[in-house]
Amino acid sequence: MNDRKCKCGRPAVVKLTYSNETLCFKCFRRSLIKRVKKTISKYSMLSPFDRICVALSGGKDSLTLLDLLILIEKDYPDSEIIAVTVDEGIEGYRDKSIKIASTFCKKMEIEHIIVSFKGEFGYTLDELVSKARKMGFPLQPCSICGVLRRRLINVVGRNVNADKIATAHNMDDEAQSILMNILRSDVERFIRLSPSPIKVDPRLVPRIKPLRNIPEREIAIYAYLRGLEIHDVNCPYAQYSFRIKLRRLLNEFDTQYPGIKPSILRFYDKIMAKVKIQRTTAIPSCSICGEPAASDPCKVCQLLSSLI
Amino acid sequence: MNDRKCKCGRPAVVKLTYSNETLCFKCFRRSLIKRVKKTISKYSMLSPFDRICVALSGGKDSLTLLDLLILIEKDYPDSEIIAVTVDEGIEGYRDKSIKIASTFCKKMEIEHIIVSFKGEFGYTLDELVSKARKMGFPLQPCSICGVLRRRLINVVGRNVNADKIATAHNMDDEAQSILMNILRSDVERFIRLSPSPIKVDPRLVPRIKPLRNIPEREIAIYAYLRGLEIHDVNCPYAQYSFRIKLRRLLNEFDTQYPGIKPSILRFYDKIMAKVKIQRTTAIPSCSICGEPAASDPCKVCQLLSSLI
Repeated sequence: MNDRKCKCGRPAVVKLTYSNETLCFKCFRRSLIKRVKKTISKYSMLSPFDRICVALSGGKDSLTLLDLLILIEKDYPDSEIIAVTVDEGIEGYRDKSIKIASTFCKKMEIEHIIVSFKGEFGYTLDELVSKARKMGFPLQPCSICGVLRRRLINVVGRNVNADKIATAHNMDDEAQSILMNILRSDVERFIRLSPSPIKVDPRLVPRIKPLRNIPEREIAIYAYLRGLEIHDVNCPYAQYSFRIKLRRLLNEFDTQYPGIKPSILRFYDKIMAKVKIQRTTAIPSCSICGEPAASDPCKVCQLLSSLI
Repeated sequence: MNDRKCKCGRPAVVKLTYSNETLCFKCFRRSLIKRVKKTISKYSMLSPFDRICVALSGGKDSLTLLDLLILIEKDYPDSEIIAVTVDEGIEGYRDKSIKIASTFCKKMEIEHIIVSFKGEFGYTLDELVSKARKMGFPLQPCSICGVLRRRLINVVGRNVNADKIATAHNMDDEAQSILMNILRSDVERFIRLSPSPIKVDPRLVPRIKPLRNIPEREIAIYAYLRGLEIHDVNCPYAQYSFRIKLRRLLNEFDTQYPGIKPSILRFYDKIMAKVKIQRTTAIPSCSICGEPAASDPCKVCQLLSSLI
């Protein structure tokens, strides 16, 4: 990169993933912000008065998301940002990232809420995984975690009167999720990946993914160049997941056929533009916990009652 | 397999791909016919008076398709079957398979038509590929072949007054095609993979894929056990194709997660049930050759004029 110049004349420090553009840090950040703003506007993710709850794990993606949203929302003085971190209870892993998240929020003067599986559901993820294993249940740790985390973030978002919950899913995550739901023929989840926030029930806070069109590699580079202190350790349970295998595969393919990942996202957008969605106006309540859910009991109650 | 019995009591000779069923040849054939009939009926592929033009390459898939269709159509005395073989002009490859196709048709008393790229377009595939390479065109042999073969089969089907053109695409082919169009974000082609025959223009003969739900492995076993003489050589150009890479990858994945292939097909059916398709009633004509085509000049004329 040493001999390459940015378009502004400064030395380049990064080469964008799917173009030959080489940029200095300032122009790179400007390019990222421009693309995130475009994503936000294209899918009508935010309005100027939104109270945005950012799901902050302390990893590179969520810290970058928060960092960029703070910059972007400076232009919208009536908007608000708060951060929420979920402590799933994964020993030797989550505790470190919570500290990093807290430190960053303090520095940026962002309200930070920490909630835990233990506090909300009575058990840590470690305890639930260990119970599932002892009972011989074929439950993957990621499935348990996903169901509970989604619930908890929604509950917190609702409690703090958030208009939107912003998650840090990047282009790689999205390409993986799209393919995962195709390979599992899960059309309902495939449709729910829609980047446009859907308000189906007043008890469910619409979710947005502003980093949806940013390659993971660029986020990693941004976090590094920006000097963000990040928690750069893989979740110890991630090795068990189907997603990790798909991730590896997509990376191999994208090296051989550059552009496969954004191409999958374009396919998603194009087919979704043709899909007739039947919007449900109200979702029934779980007869155990009262939360809105497609099934009764809801997935959270089914999971907890099967394990406890 | 020696100690396994079929449900009928006879020794089993095959284990079905996605179930633990072990069957003798008779029950296997009955099972195949039942599944092909179910596919035909589910997607309204055939009616009792159809004149069916089977695209017969001489490989295991198309010979199996013709063999099974002859058996199935015995119950429909007003239906007719003819076979068409396209000689693309691939030296040392296609000539052998044409002989095999002819011998089978003679034995089964099926009318057999042989057409060639050379006769229709003036050049063999070998000649066109060599021209493309000399001119430095980034055209893949499979792309050239696909465009010309589809055209030629349609022209023949129309000339023989066929109501349907049946191709031998199996479950593996379909899973690959679905994924390929997703990875290339080609939504139009994705939609055209629909297994239900679509009559959009009187000049285009609707295509059906009766083997769509049969795994390739079972077709290979059937062809072997039935004693079909088949042309079992890969096309020398196939190594260049994206499809071959996807095929390898899907096979690896299906070994690790059995059922991925039928799952992709189920996804396709489910999402297509939600897709609003705008049916065009008439397709414009190519100003050069007069054939119905979405673009003008059509792809065939574009291809030929760029190479010749």
